[in-house]
Amino acid sequence: MAILAFLGPHGTHSEEAAAYINDFCKQDWSLQPYRGIHEAIYAVHNGDADYCFVPIENSIEGSVRITLDTLMDDIDLKINMELIWQVHNQLLLKKGTTAIKKIISHPQALAQCRKYIQKNYSQAEIIEVVSTAHAAKMVADGLPDAAAIASKRSGQIYNLQTADAEIQDISDNVTRFILLGKKQEILHKEKPVKTLLICQIDGSKAGSLCGVLNDFANSDINMTRIESRPARTGLGNYVFFIEIETANVSEEQLRKTLQIVQEKCLWLKNMGYFPIIK
Amino acid sequence: MAILAFLGPHGTHSEEAAAYINDFCKQDWSLQPYRGIHEAIYAVHNGDADYCFVPIENSIEGSVRITLDTLMDDIDLKINMELIWQVHNQLLLKKGTTAIKKIISHPQALAQCRKYIQKNYSQAEIIEVVSTAHAAKMVADGLPDAAAIASKRSGQIYNLQTADAEIQDISDNVTRFILLGKKQEILHKEKPVKTLLICQIDGSKAGSLCGVLNDFANSDINMTRIESRPARTGLGNYVFFIEIETANVSEEQLRKTLQIVQEKCLWLKNMGYFPIIK
Repeated sequence: MAILAFLGPHGTHSEEAAAYINDFCKQDWSLQPYRGIHEAIYAVHNGDADYCFVPIENSIEGSVRITLDTLMDDIDLKINMELIWQVHNQLLLKKGTTAIKKIISHPQALAQCRKYIQKNYSQAEIIEVVSTAHAAKMVADGLPDAAAIASKRSGQIYNLQTADAEIQDISDNVTRFILLGKKQEILHKEKPVKTLLICQIDGSKAGSLCGVLNDFANSDINMTRIESRPARTGLGNYVFFIEIETANVSEEQLRKTLQIVQEKCLWLKNMGYFPIIK
Repeated sequence: MAILAFLGPHGTHSEEAAAYINDFCKQDWSLQPYRGIHEAIYAVHNGDADYCFVPIENSIEGSVRITLDTLMDDIDLKINMELIWQVHNQLLLKKGTTAIKKIISHPQALAQCRKYIQKNYSQAEIIEVVSTAHAAKMVADGLPDAAAIASKRSGQIYNLQTADAEIQDISDNVTRFILLGKKQEILHKEKPVKTLLICQIDGSKAGSLCGVLNDFANSDINMTRIESRPARTGLGNYVFFIEIETANVSEEQLRKTLQIVQEKCLWLKNMGYFPIIK
C-alpha cells in the first residue's frame, strides 16, 4: 500500500484534506503523519513515503514558507495535483476552563486569526506549536488557562468544547495543498492546467526579472502568481516561485519558452504540470 | 522630546538598532517600547509617537509579514530612512539549567535558527512569543527546562548564561529596519536613494504585473525587490511591494512613471524616498 505523508498528528487540517484527496483519487493510500512539513517532504525524497500532501499557500496569511524553502532544496520531486481547501478554525477549550490566558496553535492558524485574537484576547500569551492538532492535544492534556485554535475534527478527537467557531479573520479562508511524488503521474482524469517553476535570477542585472516575465508574456503564457524568498546567499538575492497557466500551451511552445527563460536564470527547476481540484 | 516607538520590551534587537539610529541621526528621541510591530506603527498613525522603527526584512527569513500587512492598511506614513543591521542570535539559559526541552523566541528569530534547532534540539517544544527580549525574560523568570534565542543585550539585562553564540543558520544575518514618520523628512545628510511602492494590480488581466515592471524598465528605473502579500480579498489577489532605485532618477521622470504605473493599478501608495544607512 502506497504511503501518503502529511503534517500530523491526527486531526490536522492537512489530514482532513489528505483524506479527501485519497477518496477523490479513488486511492487506498496509507496516511502517515509526520512531525513537520519539512519532514513530510523529505520522507518522499528519502523513499520512506510515496507521496506527501503539504500546504503551499493560504488566502489570508500567504505562502507557507517552510514548504517553499524546502522545495528550494536540492530535491527532485514533482507536483501531481493541487487542492483548494476551505479552512475552518475553531477556538477549543477543555471542559471547565474559565479563563483564557494562553492561545496555542500552529503559526499559520494564529496568523489567520490575528485580528480575532487582538480584539478578544489581546493580553493572552501566544504559544506556537508544530500543528493545530498538537495544540488541541496540549489543551486536552491539561495545559492550564489555554485555548487551542484547531479544526472541528481535532475538537472531536480530543473531546474539547468549541468556545467560538469560524474565528478566521476573513470567512473566505482557503488553503492550497500540493501532492508531491517522485515522478510526474496522472492520478486523476482532470487535465493538468498549471506549472510551478522555481528559479534564481541574477538580481544584480537591472531588469532581469522583467526579462523573464516578458518571455512568458511574449509566448502568451499567463503568470498567475509570483513569490520571492531569500536565496540565503546574502541580502538582495532572491529565489522566485512563478506559477503559470499551461492549459492552453502546447508542450513544444512551453519547452521553447522555458529554454529561453533558463538562459536568464542562475538555475531553474520545473516542479511539473498538474490539475487543480476545488 | 520626540518619541520613537520600537518593538519592546527592553533588550530586543529592535531596541539595539533604534538606539544606534538615534545616535547616528544625532537625535535625542525618547525610545518607547511597544508590545508589537502593529502597535508601534499605529502609535505613529494615532499621534502617540512621532516615529517608529520597525524591521521589514531579514536576509534569512525574508519579509516581516506583520510590517508589510500593517503598511497595506489605510494609514498614511512615510519612510524616512532604512538601516541595514547585523543580527546576532544567542541561546540563553538561566544559571543551573541542565536540560533544554523548550526553545522560546520571536518567530523570526526561531526561523533564522531553524537548522540549528533541527540539528541540536529536534525534540524541543518551540514556543513563540512577541519578542526575543520577552523570551529572555520568561527564561529569567523561571520557565523550566527552557532556553531563549535572543540578543546579547537581553542576556546581560536578564542575567542569563550564553549556552551557544551566533546560532543563526547563516553568519550573514542582516535585518533591514525602516524609520516611519507622519511626513517625509530629512533626518540625516545621506541622500535618498530608494522608494517603496505598495500597489494592487488587477491579477485577472494577463501580463498586468509585467506591464508595470516594463514601465519602470522603460524609464531606466531599476527594481531591487518585489514581494507579494495576499490582498485578503480572496485567493489569487495580491498586493505588491516594489522597491526601486531612485538615486539617479529626476523627480519629474519619477512623477511621470508613477502616473503611468498608477493607471495600471487598482491603487498605489508611495511610501517615500529614503537613504540607506549601513
